[in-house]
Amino acid sequence: MTAQEAQDIKAMMTDLGQNAKAAALELSVAPTEQKNDALLKAAALLRSHTDKIKQANAKDMAAGEQKGLSSSLLDRLMLDDARVEAMAKGLEAIAQLPDPVGEVMSQWDRPNGLNIARVRVPLGVIGIIYESRPNVTADAGALSLKSGNVAILRGGSESFHSSHAIMDCLVEALEQAGLPKTCIQMIPTTDRAAVGEMLTMSDVIDVIVPRGGKGLIERITRESKIPLFKHLDGICHIYVDEAADLEKARKVVVNGKMRRTGICGATETLLVNRAVVDSHLGAIVNDLIEAGCQLRGDAEACAVDSRITPATEEDWGTEYLDAILSIKVVGDVNEAVNHINTYGSHHTDCIITEDGATAENFLNRVDSAICVLNASTQFADGGEFGMGAEIGISTGKMHARGPVGVEQLTSFKYKVRGDGQCRP
Amino acid sequence: MTAQEAQDIKAMMTDLGQNAKAAALELSVAPTEQKNDALLKAAALLRSHTDKIKQANAKDMAAGEQKGLSSSLLDRLMLDDARVEAMAKGLEAIAQLPDPVGEVMSQWDRPNGLNIARVRVPLGVIGIIYESRPNVTADAGALSLKSGNVAILRGGSESFHSSHAIMDCLVEALEQAGLPKTCIQMIPTTDRAAVGEMLTMSDVIDVIVPRGGKGLIERITRESKIPLFKHLDGICHIYVDEAADLEKARKVVVNGKMRRTGICGATETLLVNRAVVDSHLGAIVNDLIEAGCQLRGDAEACAVDSRITPATEEDWGTEYLDAILSIKVVGDVNEAVNHINTYGSHHTDCIITEDGATAENFLNRVDSAICVLNASTQFADGGEFGMGAEIGISTGKMHARGPVGVEQLTSFKYKVRGDGQCRP
Repeated sequence: MTAQEAQDIKAMMTDLGQNAKAAALELSVAPTEQKNDALLKAAALLRSHTDKIKQANAKDMAAGEQKGLSSSLLDRLMLDDARVEAMAKGLEAIAQLPDPVGEVMSQWDRPNGLNIARVRVPLGVIGIIYESRPNVTADAGALSLKSGNVAILRGGSESFHSSHAIMDCLVEALEQAGLPKTCIQMIPTTDRAAVGEMLTMSDVIDVIVPRGGKGLIERITRESKIPLFKHLDGICHIYVDEAADLEKARKVVVNGKMRRTGICGATETLLVNRAVVDSHLGAIVNDLIEAGCQLRGDAEACAVDSRITPATEEDWGTEYLDAILSIKVVGDVNEAVNHINTYGSHHTDCIITEDGATAENFLNRVDSAICVLNASTQFADGGEFGMGAEIGISTGKMHARGPVGVEQLTSFKYKVRGDGQCRP
Repeated sequence: MTAQEAQDIKAMMTDLGQNAKAAALELSVAPTEQKNDALLKAAALLRSHTDKIKQANAKDMAAGEQKGLSSSLLDRLMLDDARVEAMAKGLEAIAQLPDPVGEVMSQWDRPNGLNIARVRVPLGVIGIIYESRPNVTADAGALSLKSGNVAILRGGSESFHSSHAIMDCLVEALEQAGLPKTCIQMIPTTDRAAVGEMLTMSDVIDVIVPRGGKGLIERITRESKIPLFKHLDGICHIYVDEAADLEKARKVVVNGKMRRTGICGATETLLVNRAVVDSHLGAIVNDLIEAGCQLRGDAEACAVDSRITPATEEDWGTEYLDAILSIKVVGDVNEAVNHINTYGSHHTDCIITEDGATAENFLNRVDSAICVLNASTQFADGGEFGMGAEIGISTGKMHARGPVGVEQLTSFKYKVRGDGQCRP
């Protein structure tokens, strides 16, 4: 890149940032009805522009095939009538969510007569960096809008035309609803230098949500001067306790691993209490192998079934995102907790047990965003939690943890109302 | 510093970090009674070791005088019977606070029978970097302990002996209460390289609270890889609206500026609506000058009283921390809001008005942690808010905003309880 090109990108990003800041104050006090109106209009525009969106997508698909993208990447990229309709329905669902902005989280009176209210406000400006799925444009833009935040979107180069066709609908809807069209902006270049610049704009962007593969997240984590809502890995565990119900264990383990193997809430390691290896593990192993899962185990696990191959130390820290599961035998719940806190990724971990005290010990001591008793790890999802939609899942502990929905995209302020009080 | 010395500091900090991590899990599930027991025992030990603490303080005072520290720095450093007693009382007050850990923030059932609870948990490990006040050792250690967080303290070199004498009491109290003594650790060197190392330990330390002058905060902001709870400036405003009650305006402005001029909640700029310049500003100016305040104003303000000197552009962005106030005349509440959002530091800003709609407009649109109606900006304080105590004030919007009390030192996790549910 020439110095002039670098200069141009810097100038473009500065403009974009100034527009975002200017829109943020107005959007932060926009009435709920106006934000919902924009969301519903965007849904209608997506439907009426379906052909245009599919034409744009066809360009991306052709370029992707020429570049030799894998079939799974091409599938993520592809938009048809059903997927455009799903995007429109997603926007309508976000319009239905309660507006978090302005909610009085708590309020109290002080002895001196001051009334103090803690009130939800938007964070301000959210940056979203994503890869090949063009529907993130609509989802992330809409979640930001609903929570009163200005969005700066940076889509992947593969989905460039598709994302821009979707953006056109969002921008038109903002204008129709009387909101600044800069409430949702997309970086108009696929130059990587623009991302580098974006990650330094801590005076403009309050938080960045990176969505994509591990390489993307690692790069952004390394470079960003701005806080992130992110998860790097989803190394999720199920611990089958000595007081586990066999039938629950069988179906939850198979579902946790095999329902979808490529998502972050998929189970990657099974921990089994030594006391139930003989009674439980054989049946679970059979179920998994029948479902098409490869198994890697420690010596005790391997002794149960010859189809289990030996696991190495590396397996305990691996997110397979595939039909592979590692299995380890442990002495008690505390050993399970220690293994999870050592090798896990603080995402989602489950215990199968009928013993209440053991369950509480596990739920209290496992240091993960989501601690589950007797249910599949694949419930780690904002929709399944009843949040309506999520912009991502956070394994960090600052601000947001677990599914990041509209409520987690807010901050708060204190409104202190007095009648002339002075501090003694 | 030699390579060996750098190596030694790195090794020391790694040890300290490992100790902290090990203690964090145990402390996160410690019962409220045990944490309170440690706090009360620490208070008793401070009282019974008052002489020892004063002897240690005498060493610091002597060194400080020799170094030529200013009288205000020496005053911050000084410990006498009353100040040790105040520290002990502070610990007892923190023991009285409700324990935030384990609180069920919200809980709901899903249609599939899953019960989801959002439960407060400690953040983990908190780093506190402070300067000359040795009492921060007790306050910060106690707030961390109460909220279930391990503390790594780094005191100033001036207060080295005093802080260590206080630490000895805390550590003995932890051991008496049966908690790991590494729940509160102090970096045993005043070498600046240890702070540099601390700021990189993002795998161990969850958040850092820097407490001190602007130079310290700026350095830590620049170097830290760890999130901070901080405020750099407290450029606080009072806007006297056209519907302001004169008597309230007079006493709130004088209190906001002059009660204590050196704290972050002190008022630095007065904005006055043009419509009440004639009726209100003269009296307010008289009060301020009588109280010993210097005034700097724009042309319209200067026209009111010849004792007001002209303000420059720089004044609007200056935190005087002194008996100086800048005054600007504005056309309406929106101009006041824009001035505050442009020149302020998002800390604490106040409107004086009897008009409800104008008040709400101001409270909604000023982008500050604390927005005040008809009361002094000097109420910006965790104690005054009823939080019991604060570890600092944050002007950021992520996680904590405003006074940072025990509740803001927590994160949360989701406990999901099922009965064998699988995701369809």
